[in-house]
Amino acid sequence: MSTTDSETDGATAAAGSCHGAEPQGDPQAVTNHDLGIHGYAHQKDAHIKRLRRIEGQIRGLQRMLEEDVYCIDILTQVSASTKGLQSFGLQLLEEHLRHCVADAAVKGPEAIDEKVKEATRAIERMLRT
Amino acid sequence: MSTTDSETDGATAAAGSCHGAEPQGDPQAVTNHDLGIHGYAHQKDAHIKRLRRIEGQIRGLQRMLEEDVYCIDILTQVSASTKGLQSFGLQLLEEHLRHCVADAAVKGPEAIDEKVKEATRAIERMLRT
Amino acid sequence: MSTTDSETDGATAAAGSCHGAEPQGDPQAVTNHDLGIHGYAHQKDAHIKRLRRIEGQIRGLQRMLEEDVYCIDILTQVSASTKGLQSFGLQLLEEHLRHCVADAAVKGPEAIDEKVKEATRAIERMLRT
Amino acid sequence: MSTTDSETDGATAAAGSCHGAEPQGDPQAVTNHDLGIHGYAHQKDAHIKRLRRIEGQIRGLQRMLEEDVYCIDILTQVSASTKGLQSFGLQLLEEHLRHCVADAAVKGPEAIDEKVKEATRAIERMLRT
Repeated sequence: MSTTDSETDGATAAAGSCHGAEPQGDPQAVTNHDLGIHGYAHQKDAHIKRLRRIEGQIRGLQRMLEEDVYCIDILTQVSASTKGLQSFGLQLLEEHLRHCVADAAVKGPEAIDEKVKEATRAIERMLRT
Repeated sequence: MSTTDSETDGATAAAGSCHGAEPQGDPQAVTNHDLGIHGYAHQKDAHIKRLRRIEGQIRGLQRMLEEDVYCIDILTQVSASTKGLQSFGLQLLEEHLRHCVADAAVKGPEAIDEKVKEATRAIERMLRT
Repeated sequence: MSTTDSETDGATAAAGSCHGAEPQGDPQAVTNHDLGIHGYAHQKDAHIKRLRRIEGQIRGLQRMLEEDVYCIDILTQVSASTKGLQSFGLQLLEEHLRHCVADAAVKGPEAIDEKVKEATRAIERMLRT
Repeated sequence: MSTTDSETDGATAAAGSCHGAEPQGDPQAVTNHDLGIHGYAHQKDAHIKRLRRIEGQIRGLQRMLEEDVYCIDILTQVSASTKGLQSFGLQLLEEHLRHCVADAAVKGPEAIDEKVKEATRAIERMLRT
């Protein structure tokens, strides 16, 4: 993660950022995620580029069907696209853990409990596909 | 390829089809897949429609990133798209087993052995994603 | 599917065997699987040995918990055992496809349709874990 | 989480516990995990009980092979056991995130970075099975 610049300006830099939390009374508890900066913010362009590549793979699959490519070769491409999506999800999750869950840890036990439950449900959904 | 006509008029309609096999000397062993008709032929339009929907989901993911949607909500959509792809792959595999593997079974033990190995490797790739 | 001719020449022995089918009136249609010989029969000892190794890994996990091993190291072992189980399932499936599905192909389109549906549901269950 | 007893004795009770970290100079940074208490400590008995059930399922699989049970029925049981193992791993991971990763967040950006990378690799291994 090359978040060096944004990290230099705040005491809560370590906590990173997350979305969906309300600003709290204690100014020391105001973190990037209170400002609406997401865990994936610094990587947004790279993420979108990655998704465009996956989108291209899905279009490639449609062409393969049109051109009557052999089933097994199509299945290989399906697995490659699935892997690409899973891998993208994993990176998003890593950034979420680094920023949002860490953020919650600074705020207190209730906040972390909620965020960890939420992240675990997301991991479960990734595993069940 | 539109195999609709061939579905109505021939004894081999039930056997479906597969790709990549060479016509053999014995006329009784000539099946649709020798004619280059694939297992997924009858469902081609439905498959392409399905892939277009997944393509739309991938574009939706890009919009979510642009609009700074919460990481966990993006992950939920990633899992939905992954599931859609896996499910598409599973249907393709079912048609492949029904047509190509069944076709091979008619041809003899060497043919079935090769096709089953190939299908198992494809299932393994699906499991490893 | 024109499987009638290939059924008459005794070549169906190669198709191996499968379980659950009732012997039929036509003696030429009696295959190993009608005799209650399963797809995995020839590998039974190797399979049981493999499962014993996985059983040992599960006991190893219990010891790791008792000995307060670090969570991540336990998770690594959990993944190894899961992979071992999946891999065992995949081998069983390959033998099933080779013997039972091939067997069904020799019997006719209805038989293969039923077996392929059944196998696909099993693959789906493997994917959903 | 019923961590009441062990939580009563420390200011950092909320952070939970983790293994493998060295006690640091700053007394305020001493957490349960510095004391060698793991994320899964409070659930240890439940975890071992759960693994014993999975061990029983693996033995059940061996019996099914011995008794020549139909391949597909064995595969169903393989999937159930795999699911049980994945589910156990997921619970372990949740506890790890709640205690160890939260612990690291309190310690600082380098600690959290290391723990999040480690947890992500573990999740990746779970996904790749």
